[in-house]
Amino acid sequence: MEQKFLELKKKLSEVAAVNSAAAVLGWDQQVYMPAGGAEARAASVSALEEIAHVKFTSDETGRLISETYGWAQGLGEDSFEASFLRAARRDYDRAIKLPAEFVGEFSRATSATINAWTGARAASDFAAFAPHLQKILDLNLRKAEIFGYKASPYDALLDLYEPGATKAALEPIFKKLADGLKPVIREINARAGSVSNELVKGDFDENTQLALVNEVVGALGYDFNRGRQDRSAHPFTTDFSVNDVRITTRTHRDYLPAAIYGSIHECGHALYGQGTPKNFEFTPLAGGASLGMHESQSRFWENIVGRSLPFCRWLLPLLRKHFPGKFDKVGAEELYSAVNRSAPSMIRVESDEANYNLHILLRFEIETALLEGRLKVADAPEFWNARMREYFGITPAKASEGILQDIHWSLGAIGYFPTYTLGNLISAQLAEKLNTDLPGWKELPERGDFAPILNWLRKHIHSQGRKYLPEQLLKRELGEGIRVEPFLNYIQDKYSKLYGF
Amino acid sequence: MEQKFLELKKKLSEVAAVNSAAAVLGWDQQVYMPAGGAEARAASVSALEEIAHVKFTSDETGRLISETYGWAQGLGEDSFEASFLRAARRDYDRAIKLPAEFVGEFSRATSATINAWTGARAASDFAAFAPHLQKILDLNLRKAEIFGYKASPYDALLDLYEPGATKAALEPIFKKLADGLKPVIREINARAGSVSNELVKGDFDENTQLALVNEVVGALGYDFNRGRQDRSAHPFTTDFSVNDVRITTRTHRDYLPAAIYGSIHECGHALYGQGTPKNFEFTPLAGGASLGMHESQSRFWENIVGRSLPFCRWLLPLLRKHFPGKFDKVGAEELYSAVNRSAPSMIRVESDEANYNLHILLRFEIETALLEGRLKVADAPEFWNARMREYFGITPAKASEGILQDIHWSLGAIGYFPTYTLGNLISAQLAEKLNTDLPGWKELPERGDFAPILNWLRKHIHSQGRKYLPEQLLKRELGEGIRVEPFLNYIQDKYSKLYGF
Repeated sequence: MEQKFLELKKKLSEVAAVNSAAAVLGWDQQVYMPAGGAEARAASVSALEEIAHVKFTSDETGRLISETYGWAQGLGEDSFEASFLRAARRDYDRAIKLPAEFVGEFSRATSATINAWTGARAASDFAAFAPHLQKILDLNLRKAEIFGYKASPYDALLDLYEPGATKAALEPIFKKLADGLKPVIREINARAGSVSNELVKGDFDENTQLALVNEVVGALGYDFNRGRQDRSAHPFTTDFSVNDVRITTRTHRDYLPAAIYGSIHECGHALYGQGTPKNFEFTPLAGGASLGMHESQSRFWENIVGRSLPFCRWLLPLLRKHFPGKFDKVGAEELYSAVNRSAPSMIRVESDEANYNLHILLRFEIETALLEGRLKVADAPEFWNARMREYFGITPAKASEGILQDIHWSLGAIGYFPTYTLGNLISAQLAEKLNTDLPGWKELPERGDFAPILNWLRKHIHSQGRKYLPEQLLKRELGEGIRVEPFLNYIQDKYSKLYGF
Repeated sequence: MEQKFLELKKKLSEVAAVNSAAAVLGWDQQVYMPAGGAEARAASVSALEEIAHVKFTSDETGRLISETYGWAQGLGEDSFEASFLRAARRDYDRAIKLPAEFVGEFSRATSATINAWTGARAASDFAAFAPHLQKILDLNLRKAEIFGYKASPYDALLDLYEPGATKAALEPIFKKLADGLKPVIREINARAGSVSNELVKGDFDENTQLALVNEVVGALGYDFNRGRQDRSAHPFTTDFSVNDVRITTRTHRDYLPAAIYGSIHECGHALYGQGTPKNFEFTPLAGGASLGMHESQSRFWENIVGRSLPFCRWLLPLLRKHFPGKFDKVGAEELYSAVNRSAPSMIRVESDEANYNLHILLRFEIETALLEGRLKVADAPEFWNARMREYFGITPAKASEGILQDIHWSLGAIGYFPTYTLGNLISAQLAEKLNTDLPGWKELPERGDFAPILNWLRKHIHSQGRKYLPEQLLKRELGEGIRVEPFLNYIQDKYSKLYGF
């Protein structure tokens, strides 16, 4: 039986080797590829994807999985083999369900929709985008039917990004979150202007920014022998292997936080990837428990660590070193205020910690309503704008800063957005657990002593890879499922002190 | 039948898409990959190579080739289909001959040999390298037996790099070349010191060098929308597709010509790649007629254009712009002398135009003697050193600057070196033909007017892709096969004027 397991492992590692190659192509495409390379690159990527799919969904794979599954579980739930088989079977069962024609149709539709979205967003023309969104919804409904679901088709889609999550479980989470956040946002907005971020605006040489953020992520524990940081239009993290996990950042000449917090965010993802055990490499156990769990790592480092006062105390001398003269008269408290300034924003990705999750709630509401037929595509912009008024008191002047701002739906992803909020909630739960396990941890960043924090995350989260579903992992390591209170307490505490309410 | 041809074309384009992906991985490995990524990268590259090999050598490919071959030839020797099938059949017949076990053994041996060579070269320890070289020779002999040959096993290997070339045809070429070069070298060495290259030595900021060489290759016609230039330890060119042909260069802070002529050399290769017709992309017709023909392009631009006086007249103001103050007192004639200084060198890649081909002859003599059993591996260093004394009057003090200097044998390549000399010879033949077709072309570089020269190469060489064997292509476009005289005349003329003999 062990022989068969090794056979399966070899087969899946070949699939992973091809997927890793596709990831390199994707990275190059976003970072260094000249414009002319796009057409042939698309052909190469799609060839690799098809090869990996065919290899993975072969009858041989299925046979080996079913033959070894029981044997592996018998080695104990926590064993490498048992976890390997659980993850492999989950992936396999999902992969074989989608007929090749459907995959082809879905892929053609998303290509067309991305094109349409790019044009529609530039022209702020929702009507031009609407039929494409309808097509994406229809295809996602069919996908949900193919995968099957109990309560809502949305559950089948959610499960693709956050295994085990359901609409029914998310609704009370979002309700409690919104109820807690709304009064905080009201208090902040009543004091708008009492916190300024002028000091992080100005003229910052972009190569110097890159040198700065390389130093920052290096200090956090990002291993440049097993990764690198480049620039791209949209920051991202990509794992080629355990020992080659790359991040990108973006620099705005006139606004320093974009690079700093973009880098720290991606570094959080990358520390998860670099913390994957070596023996998980090129197996179904590499890659993190879920998108939500991944986002918990990026948001933990970006916000809970990176936007803390002790971190700002550590960061300030670095800013002075890289930008001589610019931060001489700035104090750490002022820097802390500047990087935590809160204000309603039209744009999700520019939103602060207090407002961010209501942007997600809005998308969750629209997605579920559209998918369940309670909302027509034509009415979606007005739904969007009404929620913007309700949650933030602002109304997008045009669709490009409203319903057309995100690429996710165009990529075919319905049910992806909630993972951002789950990540935020988990990040606060991790911080709460650290209060017990590593007292005084919040002050460590002031000395640049990030290793104890990283080691704790390595032990409890990173080293588990994809062994457990996210909810299982939380229960094992934190003794609880998703909870809203830690995040709400964190937000209330932080912003009440910052804005004095 | 056309349907079957389209089927074959699709199949081979999928193979090409995978090979293109492997090329991206190779580029990244040499340009940007962190050290940690090496192990997993090797697995990904080898997975892609195996996939491409299996796909290409399938019975289906063979069936489609044999079914369409006659039909395609009937469309005329010069037709796309006929050339496509000739190239496809040549590749296929060769690929199916090598048993999988042999490919595996060869690949393991080269991996081990590259490691051994790296260590042996660092320690200048030929004895540590010798058993590996023996293994490489044995495997190459077996390879030659597998492919078959008439006169010498060397012919079967040569044919891998320069289709149609034979040892018997090369020998008189090398003899005539050596007979012509030796007196020139004697005359130069008798006047050693009369030409100096001090003015291109100094302290040159390496990022500025990169900006300079980007401007240079852009002026030559390299299209940065369809390629890019980065730095790597060893300069190379790699084609991902017709519209993504990348080059690398290296910069030496204290010696400017390394970057300039390294870039121009690779640019020459890349112009060939970027000049491939779009409809050849991902077909067997992409990639150039042979390594020798490719080298003719790189050497043409590097030496015949780039080391000409008119080019130096154009280059000088660029040098002054990028390195203000450093070239104020330099004249174009002095620059021309400096970049053409000739002196015996231990190292092939540092050798000048007059000496270079004798370095190749030496390797050709050793390779053939080793392969045909006329020379023992243990005696090879003394053979090497004796030839160095005979050709250049110098003796390597250690193996690292002698027989251990090149990586080619460690990569498993026996029979590759002569393509460098063939490239040099062809480059001079092209220049001779240009004298007729484009009178006054040699003066064009002075005005930075490289387009007429590139257009001529595009029309006669680049646009043909791999349609013809190199010798056929030469006969079609130049009306002659390989000839030594144009190169000898060029060298004699250039160096007699430069050194005054």
